[in-house]
Amino acid sequence: MAPESFDTPYRGGFVGAEHHYALTVYFEDTDAGGIVYHANFIKFLERARSDMLRAAGADFVALHREGGGTYVVAEVHIHYRLPARLGDDLVVLSRMTELHAASIVIQQRVMRATELLAEASVTAAFVGPTGRPQRQPMEWIARFRDLSSSAQ
Amino acid sequence: MAPESFDTPYRGGFVGAEHHYALTVYFEDTDAGGIVYHANFIKFLERARSDMLRAAGADFVALHREGGGTYVVAEVHIHYRLPARLGDDLVVLSRMTELHAASIVIQQRVMRATELLAEASVTAAFVGPTGRPQRQPMEWIARFRDLSSSAQ
Amino acid sequence: MAPESFDTPYRGGFVGAEHHYALTVYFEDTDAGGIVYHANFIKFLERARSDMLRAAGADFVALHREGGGTYVVAEVHIHYRLPARLGDDLVVLSRMTELHAASIVIQQRVMRATELLAEASVTAAFVGPTGRPQRQPMEWIARFRDLSSSAQ
Amino acid sequence: MAPESFDTPYRGGFVGAEHHYALTVYFEDTDAGGIVYHANFIKFLERARSDMLRAAGADFVALHREGGGTYVVAEVHIHYRLPARLGDDLVVLSRMTELHAASIVIQQRVMRATELLAEASVTAAFVGPTGRPQRQPMEWIARFRDLSSSAQ
Repeated sequence: MAPESFDTPYRGGFVGAEHHYALTVYFEDTDAGGIVYHANFIKFLERARSDMLRAAGADFVALHREGGGTYVVAEVHIHYRLPARLGDDLVVLSRMTELHAASIVIQQRVMRATELLAEASVTAAFVGPTGRPQRQPMEWIARFRDLSSSAQ
Repeated sequence: MAPESFDTPYRGGFVGAEHHYALTVYFEDTDAGGIVYHANFIKFLERARSDMLRAAGADFVALHREGGGTYVVAEVHIHYRLPARLGDDLVVLSRMTELHAASIVIQQRVMRATELLAEASVTAAFVGPTGRPQRQPMEWIARFRDLSSSAQ
Repeated sequence: MAPESFDTPYRGGFVGAEHHYALTVYFEDTDAGGIVYHANFIKFLERARSDMLRAAGADFVALHREGGGTYVVAEVHIHYRLPARLGDDLVVLSRMTELHAASIVIQQRVMRATELLAEASVTAAFVGPTGRPQRQPMEWIARFRDLSSSAQ
Repeated sequence: MAPESFDTPYRGGFVGAEHHYALTVYFEDTDAGGIVYHANFIKFLERARSDMLRAAGADFVALHREGGGTYVVAEVHIHYRLPARLGDDLVVLSRMTELHAASIVIQQRVMRATELLAEASVTAAFVGPTGRPQRQPMEWIARFRDLSSSAQ
């Protein structure tokens, strides 16, 4: 691998309508049970959604920096199937399954190769600077629609 | 307040069948949105459940240290209603609503005074040292039953 | 203990010039090595400093909410002596040893009863809303001086 | 980028004697000050060191899984120079500067392009299963020596 590639952070991307995000489990992610602490799976899911939004062309970081609206998590429903361990390579698969004016619903699965470790449904609401629900930028909604239509 | 009390860590406790656990929001709990990061609510819930088990007489820490079984989170369903902010004083209210041989279900609410910030249902499964589901210690089940019967 | 006390979050306080802050180790604090993850000690130190500032009458949370200045950590030097484990009750002892116009230096020790687990020196700089160093509020400096003079 | 590359987690690597590790700042890393929470820099440093050890051929994860010894952090000295923000791409540069029988010292810098955000010196001690200092595996020491000799 060329040295310069070491300086380029990881980016996931879409394979059809499904977004792929890979990560490795570090000590910080684990707990005294020897496995990934359950709340840290929720962090993995957020990293994957952030990367998915970026890949979909919804630059929420730039909007946040300009003092515009942002996404907040409104609901998480997660089932833990199998534990993850230190050093495991995982892939988070994410798919947008609902698109509303002021919110999106994303289905996410955490995989270790072909094993399903956890699956979750996450609702993210778009809110304005004061925290009130607000319509998502029209351009983003259009991009999300394109994603769904490529989903078949 | 007497100086020696400063050296005594906080413990919550039961009011009837409902366990109360109070905490203050520190910088570590917040994110760049200026509010408590959503995954950190999941940590608050776990602190409250750990304290609840202790208060109920289920010394899972001692059992864990002896290499016995432990609880793992099998499912979390959480709704976020209102954001929490730096310096907020919160109370987590927890109630055991289902008691099975190898698992428990706990309903939890995160309150700021009378405001409901989040509500969750958490299933915790008891597993042996190898990670397989295992019956909870009989003595703990008896204690949990006593709790439920005081729930009316 | 009276039920209402369960709803009151823990507060530490000063014993002379030394601030005491007690906490219990939860699963979230540990790692797969079975001990408290080293970066989480840094979080314990910050909880203790936040509580110390509050106890000293420097209400940095209110100032932060008003969009005023805040403290940022400029330097941490920590030695880890002994590991902490799940369920341990710890006390963080903090003492302000240097007071400058725009910064403070705090010596901190993490104790488990009489055992020293970690000791650290932390420099916190006061910065304005744009992140530039700024003189601490005069009233806070006066309060910090009172603390030092009670230090003998 | 080919789809399959999305499923491959990031790995850093050595450029001469210096290890490079790139990452992106997510919401989980930030705090209400709008910047990366100081203790989370310590986590970035650990991810980089873990990756460095792997790249150097010291498979501490496998050893840990077999119940062998592991590294624990004995000392961290970190200076924070400039804040990092949501969405920033960072590179952690790490260099082993001391090699002892039972410990190593690593100098680390966190960069945002050419800006130095933080610099740290970290001492990691090798300990056996009971937590006692222990000589590092001979093969690892040999590999670390090779690194140093390529350092000129």
